[in-house]
Amino acid sequence: MARKKKDTQDVTEHFDDLIKDIKVAMMTTVEADGSLRSRPMWTHARDFDGELWFFTREHSPKVDEVTHDHHVNLAYSDPTRDRYVSVSGRCRLVLDKEKARALWNPTLKAWFPDGLDDPELALLCVRVEKAEYWDTPSSRMVQLTGM
Amino acid sequence: MARKKKDTQDVTEHFDDLIKDIKVAMMTTVEADGSLRSRPMWTHARDFDGELWFFTREHSPKVDEVTHDHHVNLAYSDPTRDRYVSVSGRCRLVLDKEKARALWNPTLKAWFPDGLDDPELALLCVRVEKAEYWDTPSSRMVQLTGM
Ligand SMILES: Cc1cc2nc3c(=O)[nH]c(=O)nc-3n(C[C@H](O)[C@H](O)[C@H](O)COP(=O)(O)O)c2cc1C
Repeated sequence: MARKKKDTQDVTEHFDDLIKDIKVAMMTTVEADGSLRSRPMWTHARDFDGELWFFTREHSPKVDEVTHDHHVNLAYSDPTRDRYVSVSGRCRLVLDKEKARALWNPTLKAWFPDGLDDPELALLCVRVEKAEYWDTPSSRMVQLTGM
Repeated sequence: MARKKKDTQDVTEHFDDLIKDIKVAMMTTVEADGSLRSRPMWTHARDFDGELWFFTREHSPKVDEVTHDHHVNLAYSDPTRDRYVSVSGRCRLVLDKEKARALWNPTLKAWFPDGLDDPELALLCVRVEKAEYWDTPSSRMVQLTGM
């Protein structure tokens, strides 16, 4: 399986492109007993600079899980376009109302009906360490490094 | 978020249904350093009985990873239909030519051009321990147990 390395600037530009039409990632975290769980999460990735942002409730199982073990995987997949992306990174909880205001987007009302006033509203920031993608028709895996 | 429990028979029937139109899972494994990686994998799930089967090369990073830590997550997502499924389970390598013959399907030629004669051809069997799904439009999470 061919692997290609790209330099940092390339990666950053390319990454925006890769996930721009796939907004929802399946975020996998490690539970206390070692099980792996995933759930769909809406990605905020405008002007990707090595970090991806997500909204969460401050008190939720996934926050417990990333506090216990920072490693996460973000899987972006779109079977109709045969596009698959794996992002490995470390995740931390961020309580920052200013940042939340900057990222807020009306789509989020579905999960946070009280919007920015919701006292439980918090952010998860994933620092990307490795990204790999597969595209049609070769199903070749390309590895992005230097992030 | 509402959670529903279903009994075993229900789950088995329902599960087939859930993933029947999403053939490709993103399989997440744990690397030796704790990082989480995922990759697209073609699912064999006819007549689901609590196990899901995948073809793999016997000597490949994902086999090393599941040998070191059996936990995997399978994320099935179909953004166009807003359907997301998380499967948590344990994975083991199976070397069984008879089973491989029973599961073989011509689509696999893309990754295994030598087909059943490939000496590297092996199987991964995932014993499902928990499954959760989200569907439109409520984004309600439903937990399937009893597997
Ligand atoms: C749509 C799609 C389906 C794939 N299905 C399989 C599969 O069933 N088995 C497999 O070993 N690799 C499959 N691959 C390739 C894997 O994603 C991966 O690149 C390869 O197995 C090596 O993974 P590893 O380095 O993590 O071991 C598939 C790739 C694509 C794009």
